[in-house]
Amino acid sequence: MLLAMRDDEELGRITLAQVAQRAGVSISTVSKVLNGRQDVAPPTRIKVERLLEAHAYRRTTRSAREAPLIEIVFHELESIWAMELIRGVENVAKAHNAGVVLTESGTRHSPSPDWMEAMLQRRPLGVVLVFSALPSEVKQQLRARSIPFVIIDPAGDPDPDVPSVGSANWNGGLAATRHLIEYGHRRIGIITGPEDMLCSRARLDGYRSAMTMAGLEVDPGLILFGDFHVEGGYDRAAEMLSRPERPTAIFAGSDLQALGVLEAARVHGLRVPHDLSVVGYDDVSIARWASPALTTVHQPLRQMAEEAAQMLMRLRAREPVSTRLELATSLVVRKSTAPPPEGDGAPGR
Amino acid sequence: MLLAMRDDEELGRITLAQVAQRAGVSISTVSKVLNGRQDVAPPTRIKVERLLEAHAYRRTTRSAREAPLIEIVFHELESIWAMELIRGVENVAKAHNAGVVLTESGTRHSPSPDWMEAMLQRRPLGVVLVFSALPSEVKQQLRARSIPFVIIDPAGDPDPDVPSVGSANWNGGLAATRHLIEYGHRRIGIITGPEDMLCSRARLDGYRSAMTMAGLEVDPGLILFGDFHVEGGYDRAAEMLSRPERPTAIFAGSDLQALGVLEAARVHGLRVPHDLSVVGYDDVSIARWASPALTTVHQPLRQMAEEAAQMLMRLRAREPVSTRLELATSLVVRKSTAPPPEGDGAPGR
Repeated sequence: MLLAMRDDEELGRITLAQVAQRAGVSISTVSKVLNGRQDVAPPTRIKVERLLEAHAYRRTTRSAREAPLIEIVFHELESIWAMELIRGVENVAKAHNAGVVLTESGTRHSPSPDWMEAMLQRRPLGVVLVFSALPSEVKQQLRARSIPFVIIDPAGDPDPDVPSVGSANWNGGLAATRHLIEYGHRRIGIITGPEDMLCSRARLDGYRSAMTMAGLEVDPGLILFGDFHVEGGYDRAAEMLSRPERPTAIFAGSDLQALGVLEAARVHGLRVPHDLSVVGYDDVSIARWASPALTTVHQPLRQMAEEAAQMLMRLRAREPVSTRLELATSLVVRKSTAPPPEGDGAPGR
Repeated sequence: MLLAMRDDEELGRITLAQVAQRAGVSISTVSKVLNGRQDVAPPTRIKVERLLEAHAYRRTTRSAREAPLIEIVFHELESIWAMELIRGVENVAKAHNAGVVLTESGTRHSPSPDWMEAMLQRRPLGVVLVFSALPSEVKQQLRARSIPFVIIDPAGDPDPDVPSVGSANWNGGLAATRHLIEYGHRRIGIITGPEDMLCSRARLDGYRSAMTMAGLEVDPGLILFGDFHVEGGYDRAAEMLSRPERPTAIFAGSDLQALGVLEAARVHGLRVPHDLSVVGYDDVSIARWASPALTTVHQPLRQMAEEAAQMLMRLRAREPVSTRLELATSLVVRKSTAPPPEGDGAPGR
């Protein structure tokens, strides 16, 4: 199967023969570098990689050795998101008779060179990366081999020059807060994610807009940044619940943080939802299994992964692909939210 | 790399040439069938497969095209076990510079023919199967291609002729029950797994032995089979907690069932652990995140998967491998267990 990639960056194109000539090596050596072969001396490899990168080389044909594999790479497999994303890619792979190769690699900012090398040898149909952004050399290495790649970015911080799939964080924050306001809550706390993640900011801005549009003042003491983990949710909720005027509801920013809020409520002798309403975010399976089951914002993780894998297939077929796809979030009402205990605002404890 | 498999079943061996002759086809056709190629007419393929199976054919050399991949196959990726098992295989694969191919396929009893076909084309280093038992044709197809395979079997029902890894279910049931007895509980309920799974039986037998050794009578009304899911735990606990003489502690048989017990306790107005102690089983991450955090039996899932993947590597190297490896379980005490409310046995509600 010989399919060409989109050649929308024709400028500065160079042929394999030209790379070989400039590097002072044979064409077959350049080809070995492109295919991740190990039998090339490191200095030669580096020289060839630099030339490929400097001229934004892109392979126009695909190798016949290409394997029916889709790769998915995470920097953190521990994430409760991981399984849903894997299942989404798996669904699309099955439909194309392809296998899914799963790797945990690198940091939040880049997969490791080890993965890159092994992947180049595997020659997959395409790569789904669960990373917020990619270093330019990673992008160039993939482009040089004509391996399509798409980012799944639940953090909401898309790399502008890579096709990516995310979801509507601002709308999610708005919907969660509106739901609490409609129940009659006035003192609503928010524990959003880490300060340096755009999705945390977007959810917080959605919260602010809902409060402002309802004519409610936002108490700065009830806005805390968290870490998206259970411990962060517990600590921040314990802080809010110890205040003289505690909130009657907390929008927890993630399901894991919501579990921490449930535990803080239990330790403070507060019943959820009778004394305190709690809203999560993500709608992973633990949200359904919590006690009480969490009202939460559904982030369509499986669909996001399916879209990403389908984008790979469209890229291979030279079909047009949007650079950024944002799927809708939606509120799922379960048992952790109810009207506040005594109308507007709760007394201190 | 040409490594031969253990040839401990020399009887009835047949060569490729003999298979070809008996099937009335060329050797290259037989070879195509072995390699999962699509360009063989179905009746021919079936004829060749039957001959290979009848003579327990085993390839003695491996293909040079073999890919540095380890496959892991689940019948149900939804399982909370899945991620831990994947991580274990991933760890070993990384150490051998191999990728991990992940597939959800088939039923509890067998992966699907689709997977088999695609896997044969991928030619992995080996296969880890998360299934209790395998149909003989699946075993024979893998053996014919000389692809090593190991079963991970948390259900405790190992296939006798396949290397498998499990964990000590009976000991887990014993430890969980002894812990409750040591706290002073006398009326201890158990919700074990499905009736037809050996691990459910083994955990129940461990419970019975602990009760008998402590001189405690077992109330048959406090022994219920569940489904290993949250809903089953909720239903069975609701049943136990509605009895005139309710238990002061429940051993829930799985962490998911324990979450159901927590919810049933909440709905019945019982505080955990003050009014009711709860012990889970598995020690997946949700056990730590529950409110209160669950006392549970740790099943070393990641290690089990690491052992299984290492067994593949030993099989490849013709090193001896035990047919059944059972790893130890251990009790993890957290916050869902405490002494019973008023000494021996609780009053009806």
